[in-house]
Amino acid sequence: MNNVVSPIQKARLAYAPKLPAALRAGANVKCEEGPKQKAFADTEKIEARFPNTSNMPVLTFGAGNGAAAKPVNVAVILSGGQAPGGHNVIAGLFDGLKSLNPASRLYGFKGGPSGLTDNKYIEITADFLAGFRNTGGFDMIGSGRTKLETPEQFEKAEANCKALGITAIVIIGGDDSNTNACLLAEYYKAKNAGIIVVGCPKTIDGDLKNAFIETSFGFDTATKVYSELIGNIERDANSAKKYWHFIKLMGRSASHIALECGLRTQANITLISEEVAAKKQTLDQVVTTIADSVAKRAANGENFGVALIPEGLIEFIPDFKVLIAELNDILAKDAEAYGAITENDRKAAFILGKLTEKSAAVFASLPMEIKMQLTMDRDPHGNVQVSRIETEKLLTQLVKAKLDGWKKEGKFVGKFSTQTHFFGYEGRCSMPSNFDADYCYSLGFNAAAIISTGKTGYMSSVRNLIAPADQWIAGAIPLTAMMNMEHRHGEDKPVIKKALVELDGAPFKMLAANRDKWAVETSYVYPGPIQFFGPSEVADITTITLALEKGK
Amino acid sequence: MNNVVSPIQKARLAYAPKLPAALRAGANVKCEEGPKQKAFADTEKIEARFPNTSNMPVLTFGAGNGAAAKPVNVAVILSGGQAPGGHNVIAGLFDGLKSLNPASRLYGFKGGPSGLTDNKYIEITADFLAGFRNTGGFDMIGSGRTKLETPEQFEKAEANCKALGITAIVIIGGDDSNTNACLLAEYYKAKNAGIIVVGCPKTIDGDLKNAFIETSFGFDTATKVYSELIGNIERDANSAKKYWHFIKLMGRSASHIALECGLRTQANITLISEEVAAKKQTLDQVVTTIADSVAKRAANGENFGVALIPEGLIEFIPDFKVLIAELNDILAKDAEAYGAITENDRKAAFILGKLTEKSAAVFASLPMEIKMQLTMDRDPHGNVQVSRIETEKLLTQLVKAKLDGWKKEGKFVGKFSTQTHFFGYEGRCSMPSNFDADYCYSLGFNAAAIISTGKTGYMSSVRNLIAPADQWIAGAIPLTAMMNMEHRHGEDKPVIKKALVELDGAPFKMLAANRDKWAVETSYVYPGPIQFFGPSEVADITTITLALEKGK
Repeated sequence: MNNVVSPIQKARLAYAPKLPAALRAGANVKCEEGPKQKAFADTEKIEARFPNTSNMPVLTFGAGNGAAAKPVNVAVILSGGQAPGGHNVIAGLFDGLKSLNPASRLYGFKGGPSGLTDNKYIEITADFLAGFRNTGGFDMIGSGRTKLETPEQFEKAEANCKALGITAIVIIGGDDSNTNACLLAEYYKAKNAGIIVVGCPKTIDGDLKNAFIETSFGFDTATKVYSELIGNIERDANSAKKYWHFIKLMGRSASHIALECGLRTQANITLISEEVAAKKQTLDQVVTTIADSVAKRAANGENFGVALIPEGLIEFIPDFKVLIAELNDILAKDAEAYGAITENDRKAAFILGKLTEKSAAVFASLPMEIKMQLTMDRDPHGNVQVSRIETEKLLTQLVKAKLDGWKKEGKFVGKFSTQTHFFGYEGRCSMPSNFDADYCYSLGFNAAAIISTGKTGYMSSVRNLIAPADQWIAGAIPLTAMMNMEHRHGEDKPVIKKALVELDGAPFKMLAANRDKWAVETSYVYPGPIQFFGPSEVADITTITLALEKGK
Repeated sequence: MNNVVSPIQKARLAYAPKLPAALRAGANVKCEEGPKQKAFADTEKIEARFPNTSNMPVLTFGAGNGAAAKPVNVAVILSGGQAPGGHNVIAGLFDGLKSLNPASRLYGFKGGPSGLTDNKYIEITADFLAGFRNTGGFDMIGSGRTKLETPEQFEKAEANCKALGITAIVIIGGDDSNTNACLLAEYYKAKNAGIIVVGCPKTIDGDLKNAFIETSFGFDTATKVYSELIGNIERDANSAKKYWHFIKLMGRSASHIALECGLRTQANITLISEEVAAKKQTLDQVVTTIADSVAKRAANGENFGVALIPEGLIEFIPDFKVLIAELNDILAKDAEAYGAITENDRKAAFILGKLTEKSAAVFASLPMEIKMQLTMDRDPHGNVQVSRIETEKLLTQLVKAKLDGWKKEGKFVGKFSTQTHFFGYEGRCSMPSNFDADYCYSLGFNAAAIISTGKTGYMSSVRNLIAPADQWIAGAIPLTAMMNMEHRHGEDKPVIKKALVELDGAPFKMLAANRDKWAVETSYVYPGPIQFFGPSEVADITTITLALEKGK
């Protein structure tokens, strides 16, 4: 640890996270079994793939009698991208295990799933942990993106666990990591390995949620950090009255982050990828939506605004998807001929001649810079790197071109100057909000409770999150209950379903009901920075998304 | 006003800013005159230019007896770029004027200095003001960049003021705006117009400070917002262990923002433009400094880091400045021939052939994208737009090129993947920190006290800022005392001296003493978000820069 800590870091180390009432007497809970839960879709296929971990009951925990249990040795890993609160899951797990029996031990395997197979670990002690309580980041034990999915990996992990007397593995990760947690649970149960597996729902993207998991941890904090910045920029836009700010927001394929930030800040434009896909909107339609707001605001004398753009947008636009597919084909076939051309204009003309009419029109509409980015900057498999496209800049250029046309037609009278931003890394390792600090600590403590029941293949579940923490409901959900079959990389695989924005859900409906007004009027809300102290309505309330989903 | 406000906005509207003890009984203060203060340089020329407002005493205020004064009508304008706390200067001014006499009136002239000449104003009432107390932004009355410097403008402003019975103008601005405030004060005093002028020190850049002005308002809040984000990114870098983040920070010509953020977050690299200029460093030397840190950290297995880059850096690098000057010449002379070339490679070769040997070497070292940006994207006067250069991206490309060379020589064994960021607009309109809320309110209230003395050509001064607010010293400094003569746009002009980073000052020395360690080790500090509530050490402390300057 660094020996210099900021005053806030110091104050946060001393914060005592709140637990659900059921866990306050310790992790040795009273366990109630609910009805058995089948996979929500493709039930038979999931049962066939997971004969030992399907059709298991939902568990709900009540307060135990505080009696000591047997000591247990546990492994924990962080998997995938950072999310605020990961350290608190580990802190809660540690305290939960010690509440079962002070002789329990917790081992942190380092650098993600590969730590488990490569046997890189540290024992987590109270002293070590003290410097990480309520902090952001995954630096305590690191994370990684190795996929744990082969029997060889499972065997290695088992051997490493056995050597340390470990009988439970807690995997903190997103939908993919928890899918793999389920594979591991099934594998160990089938061979009676004596190791149970528990998952915890992590991701700032907010796309790991379902009937039993109300939200993934980190989503609250990350969206609050982004909303702080968006609000600051809105106020700057409204003060300088000079720029349209185009802000891309992290969140890969799901637009939950953009939606939450849009609701929180009432930006002029909030694009939702899922809607673009559902309505089969063209790139030109998306551009027109924004240009329309710019023109209307300009007519009111307001030559400024803020537009929020979800990271994955471009991949959800059907005509753009077709273009990308065609480009991949052309570049694979004609790589050499294309590579021999040195001038940009001639490169573009070469491509244009080989595209279908529809894709040619889309390609022709793009600025040269993006044309070159699309055709030159490819991944090791030769594919276009869609994620590298600066969508926020692409859209400013296309909107500008559209407005230039409208200006000639007299449909736009105003100025259009832009600034672009991408917010992502700013929010993944922020100090967790009080909500995420409490929620994560509870998820970890609750994982210890699941371990105390001896049951495997479950995800730690803490629900009723819009109520105060003492009313939160602690329990466990079979991982298989969240699964369905999906076609990935050429084969049908059982996976936890990724939760995209639902167009008939309350959060999207709230946006849809207000966006025509927000697109034209200046209705900005300034959320300000995350507060750890102060009145509860300032420091403790979670997302608008969750409140709306729960009917509040 | 928007009728939806966030919980924090609501809480902040109710915050009561703290005042210096001398102002707590009202703005009708006891005024002590100190020694007469000459201009700190070019004294005779300043005296000649400002015969009526030179050699005036420094004023220090003591608590008055609370007696009412005559009502006074006052104008206020915001000038230049946004800074957190501008609304609070106006709130303090309003409350100060009302403390003199409830019949006093305050008029806000809209859109900056041009509002004063174009007679665009609103009367600021208690109700109107209530929605803006302790908020960020300049949206209350807007701002602008019109320079108030000609007699015609002064006459128009006078006529508009006279029509409203206004006898004092408060100008909230940076060094340029306060220079113009001084010109205006002198002009009115000379003609006995009966209108006094008071300045207030505003700018997030932190470059308006001197023996009497400890800091400009907004610097505290803006650097805290940027430091929050830098800290979050540091934690992400240290968790993912995958990227070097190059972060450009707003601040035009001065590097105070980068320096404060560097001290606060202990980033691996903090570049200071003033040092680059003083040491006449070449672009290659700057690149080598960064590449050196990357290589040393890679040798320790740490292929990640954070580098802070001041916005104005590129203009401080001597060899780059020469290149720009040569490019301006070439492009002016050979615009047509250059414009006729279509291929980038040939464009670059054309330029290269016309540069001096030294500049040719610099130009040749640049990536093609930057070469084209430098030669194609010119301002209306045909000059290279240096401010448009994405310095953060330029440096990643040059560092990569350097490391590729070192790799071949075996001097670098590691990976170098980058992410770039530019933080500026995120911090200019943030809700002011408690410090800036208090400081700005005090500056405004104190301006009312200056008005009560009837003296013109002063800047509102609140000092001893590292002590609690009740120990702050209220007073006034003659604007001419901060002036010297500078050569600008072909002529010698009296201007308030811009305070650049002093290389023998304590803040820079602190950086210099630690940076070799920070460049190699991971010594990150995570400042977290601005806190409005909670313990004083978390919520009320101002910048490290000021503490060091005051010997703390």
